[in-house]
Amino acid sequence: MSEVVLKSQAAKATTGALNKLTTAQKDAALLRVADALVAAQERLLAANEEDIIRGRQQGTSESLLDRLKLTPERLEAIANGVREVVALPDPVGETLAAFTRPNGLSIEQRRVPIGVIGMIYEARPNVTVDAASLCLKTGNAVVLRGGSAALSSNRAIVAVMREALSGSDMPEDALQLIEDSDRKSVDEMLKLNGLLDVIIPRGGASLIRNVVQNATVPVIETGAGICHTFADESADYAMTEAIALNAKVQRPSVCNSMETLLVHEAFAKQHLAALAERFREANVTLRGCDSSRRLAPWIESASDEDYATEYNDYILNIKVVQNVDEALNHISRFGTQHSECIVTENAGNAERFLQEVDAAAVYHNASTRFTDGFEFGFGAEIGISTQKLHARGPMGLPALTTTKYRIVGSGQIRT
Amino acid sequence: MSEVVLKSQAAKATTGALNKLTTAQKDAALLRVADALVAAQERLLAANEEDIIRGRQQGTSESLLDRLKLTPERLEAIANGVREVVALPDPVGETLAAFTRPNGLSIEQRRVPIGVIGMIYEARPNVTVDAASLCLKTGNAVVLRGGSAALSSNRAIVAVMREALSGSDMPEDALQLIEDSDRKSVDEMLKLNGLLDVIIPRGGASLIRNVVQNATVPVIETGAGICHTFADESADYAMTEAIALNAKVQRPSVCNSMETLLVHEAFAKQHLAALAERFREANVTLRGCDSSRRLAPWIESASDEDYATEYNDYILNIKVVQNVDEALNHISRFGTQHSECIVTENAGNAERFLQEVDAAAVYHNASTRFTDGFEFGFGAEIGISTQKLHARGPMGLPALTTTKYRIVGSGQIRT
Repeated sequence: MSEVVLKSQAAKATTGALNKLTTAQKDAALLRVADALVAAQERLLAANEEDIIRGRQQGTSESLLDRLKLTPERLEAIANGVREVVALPDPVGETLAAFTRPNGLSIEQRRVPIGVIGMIYEARPNVTVDAASLCLKTGNAVVLRGGSAALSSNRAIVAVMREALSGSDMPEDALQLIEDSDRKSVDEMLKLNGLLDVIIPRGGASLIRNVVQNATVPVIETGAGICHTFADESADYAMTEAIALNAKVQRPSVCNSMETLLVHEAFAKQHLAALAERFREANVTLRGCDSSRRLAPWIESASDEDYATEYNDYILNIKVVQNVDEALNHISRFGTQHSECIVTENAGNAERFLQEVDAAAVYHNASTRFTDGFEFGFGAEIGISTQKLHARGPMGLPALTTTKYRIVGSGQIRT
Repeated sequence: MSEVVLKSQAAKATTGALNKLTTAQKDAALLRVADALVAAQERLLAANEEDIIRGRQQGTSESLLDRLKLTPERLEAIANGVREVVALPDPVGETLAAFTRPNGLSIEQRRVPIGVIGMIYEARPNVTVDAASLCLKTGNAVVLRGGSAALSSNRAIVAVMREALSGSDMPEDALQLIEDSDRKSVDEMLKLNGLLDVIIPRGGASLIRNVVQNATVPVIETGAGICHTFADESADYAMTEAIALNAKVQRPSVCNSMETLLVHEAFAKQHLAALAERFREANVTLRGCDSSRRLAPWIESASDEDYATEYNDYILNIKVVQNVDEALNHISRFGTQHSECIVTENAGNAERFLQEVDAAAVYHNASTRFTDGFEFGFGAEIGISTQKLHARGPMGLPALTTTKYRIVGSGQIRT
């Protein structure tokens, strides 16, 4: 049998034991893991150095190498991330509903672990620790499949974590790393119904597309975001400028950053030239409609393809619209149902926008950059779900649980 | 463009309008639908008669023809089903969480419609009305793809429902029926990401397998159930007999009926012969392990394949086990995580069973036949989810909703 099947079977074999662990037992195991990651610093940095050298030989860009790189400080931060997960409340065991039926049946719905979670992700080795600790905290076994560029690091990290678990009440086989870096091992995971209960992809658009298109195991889709900010007729200029700049340039590479600024024509006449100038100062390339280019001639011409592109970069589309309806239509056509914002002083328009835009997170007078598990106060983030089933928007620990109905009777039968 | 694409686009185009409807508007539209179904009795029975005649010509069995058959009484019951859905509380708009962050951002999580739901099902025409009314009540558009055996009936039913909607605030295009009875129309729906938000299959194992294996649109899997009842050492005999007979013979054709009875060896020695006799009287064919056959020689020999079969029929497997562990292992190996029951007077064993069995519904001293939306008091049932994501077990109206975060600020930006 293949590595994927063998390791997934080993993971599944631990679900019964995981299901019986108390929160205290799980937390104690994770604290051992955190300590072990710090104690093994030398070994982990040496393994990481192998990835860096190999990456450099293969011509990997310095920015990617930097994402891959571990340092003593980064290891400490990673270990602290585990300690933060320990400090979070455990959703497992929570009673979501409890009621008694007229026939005397007592029915309780409780949160339970999902079972075995498959994580497919790219090169950053911190995701290995992060994903594993979130899954283990919620009593799930996890099968990790990281990118080949981080294989030496991931192998060392998982070895250290498993050693730490072996001295705890949590079975070390609950944590598995697929080392086969052939793409086939991903394809195999996607079809492993019966052994994997869910697959969570984390990474770029092509990774996520492959998972969504080919998985028969249920998937929680995360990722893509073409987010809009709409400056309405009555928008406060200073607020609009602050929100729009923040949404674009505070961290352009992430999914909740803005790709297109929609501007009401009246607001545009008064303020677009100044606003565009601010983006130019921030080194943002602007692409826009003809109306916007008449007001700020340095804006390049935008095509429908531009409006449909997630740049994740210092590029912004600008479109002048006649009213809220045109803004809503544009968002409906080009948005990815991630995060959408209206800046307005008009309460009616704000309510229409919040009500009618179909997205995981809709904002009135705040930056879309807040769509994030930590910013929402969840204390952790498995990812931002861009699907409508199971979880939508930033996912905290409850997204890694399912439910079970417990029914207690005294001999009831159905008539 | 194909019928599937055109009708799905038409359905999607109504989601904005549906999203704005009040509960009163949706309920008024559905009451019109209920009245129209009764008023159109003659037309609907005539269309149904076409299906019956065609089915008889094609040699369809009388039991299947009976499932297909509409009568004035059945039409009245179907219309009353719509009125019952009207009477249910509307989950849309419900606030699931509301909190304010230290930076002043006010965050509210609200239930919203999913969007467009694809239903793929088999021959019973009542499912057409049932599924449509549940989807419309929750503000979703729905694309129905029923079985070809009921095509004339479904066409007439949907025409009557759409006519009723056209006089209401609910757009008639929210309800679509795919009339193309080629299997390709199903395959097309399964890949219609972007137009369909979820697919719910209802029907036999092969229909559901096809959907799960081939859909790229998210699926809510319903259906298969290999359910067990475990008579523990301390089980009360009379209670065990009542529960086991009910679980097997009250309605053997459904997913929550029992397929295998596990019996503790001490209980078996005292009671198995009598219990097996009762099943024989109820015309149930018994297949069992060697130990069971020594106690009741008319039991036939059971294979592993039998233990893995969902009979949905008057056939029952019996297996004698040494203890709770062996029962748990058998269920873990052969169960489908649907509904599982322990009959015992031992509180510790009951708790172990409820805690350790991984299933949507776990029972202590009650028949597995209670796994049902109506029996749970949900007032409706979209189906029984046998997956772990989004919904697990009987699904009421909330399973047809997703959530949206509404964030209201005063110019907050991320630092």
